[in-house]
Amino acid sequence: MASISLHPAIDQGIRQGTPDFAGGTLVCACTDRPVTVRINAQVLHNHACGCTKCWKPAGAIFSIVGVVPEDKVEVTANGDKLKVVDPSALIQRYACTACGVHLYGPIEKEHAFKGLAFIHTERSTDPGWAAPEFAAFVSSVIESGTRPSDMPAVRARLKELGLEPYDCLSPPLMDALAIYAARKAGTLRE
Amino acid sequence: MASISLHPAIDQGIRQGTPDFAGGTLVCACTDRPVTVRINAQVLHNHACGCTKCWKPAGAIFSIVGVVPEDKVEVTANGDKLKVVDPSALIQRYACTACGVHLYGPIEKEHAFKGLAFIHTERSTDPGWAAPEFAAFVSSVIESGTRPSDMPAVRARLKELGLEPYDCLSPPLMDALAIYAARKAGTLRE
Repeated sequence: MASISLHPAIDQGIRQGTPDFAGGTLVCACTDRPVTVRINAQVLHNHACGCTKCWKPAGAIFSIVGVVPEDKVEVTANGDKLKVVDPSALIQRYACTACGVHLYGPIEKEHAFKGLAFIHTERSTDPGWAAPEFAAFVSSVIESGTRPSDMPAVRARLKELGLEPYDCLSPPLMDALAIYAARKAGTLRE
Repeated sequence: MASISLHPAIDQGIRQGTPDFAGGTLVCACTDRPVTVRINAQVLHNHACGCTKCWKPAGAIFSIVGVVPEDKVEVTANGDKLKVVDPSALIQRYACTACGVHLYGPIEKEHAFKGLAFIHTERSTDPGWAAPEFAAFVSSVIESGTRPSDMPAVRARLKELGLEPYDCLSPPLMDALAIYAARKAGTLRE
């Protein structure tokens, strides 16, 4: 059986990151005045995401999205082309208004992940970005057109690639969200 | 290592249901005028739930909660003691105002699971209810007081009992929610 295609960056297997990698430059898809964003850090983690809001290259079912501290993000050229896709969303996804590529998405509201920004390392030609570690919001790919009958094959292929499929975030991240909620509610005081 | 206690109905192992079981009667904890609810069906499925809203017996980290079609639910005694705990919640949890036990919780709003009601089969002495099959909203137990450092033991114990831990619902149920959303959005037309 031919494998189902998930995303060009992982369809041929996962490429591991470089231990001492310290960042690189993201570029949008424009040939004229491309937006460039310098990321001054390795991603804290990278993952495949099936949600309907993350930017995906043409034909991809999943996005590949990583997280860095927002203060490691620096717009270095043509930032005037950037605009937040949906200001009401938790993640403020700054996209190029000409080509549509998302360059970075900080969380600025009160939230467990406030201060982090989501980026797509595939928009960088610098080698060494950390590999994706799991797949989040897998069931959501149905909402962007994946046939429900293909879901067993989608989850099987993710597992085969070493990306454990979750229909929300991974357990450590879900625990982090619950810890934040418990502290806010006063249930957890440590 | 002593196992972590999750819920009295599963701490000694999972008891399987009876194939031809057709329902039973739920009773609240009151000795005076107990509320009784007749369930005219086996549960469609049963699961452990870590959310903060489901009713749990004293000391339990998880609830055990099953689903039946709402039209199989019949209040048979002292229904005047019932009141919805939180009318704004998706699940309208009818609880006994005297003892606090939840008797049934229908979903009445537009939703993928509209027409179903959540029940706690442990409130019935009739043997044969279907066994829990997985654990939902596991990370949420942190919000009701489980220490974050206990989470690896909680997930390990669930797996040992054969209850795969999920931080949302199980993949088939998450797919069902996504299918509902995709149909509503017009993305899925089958």
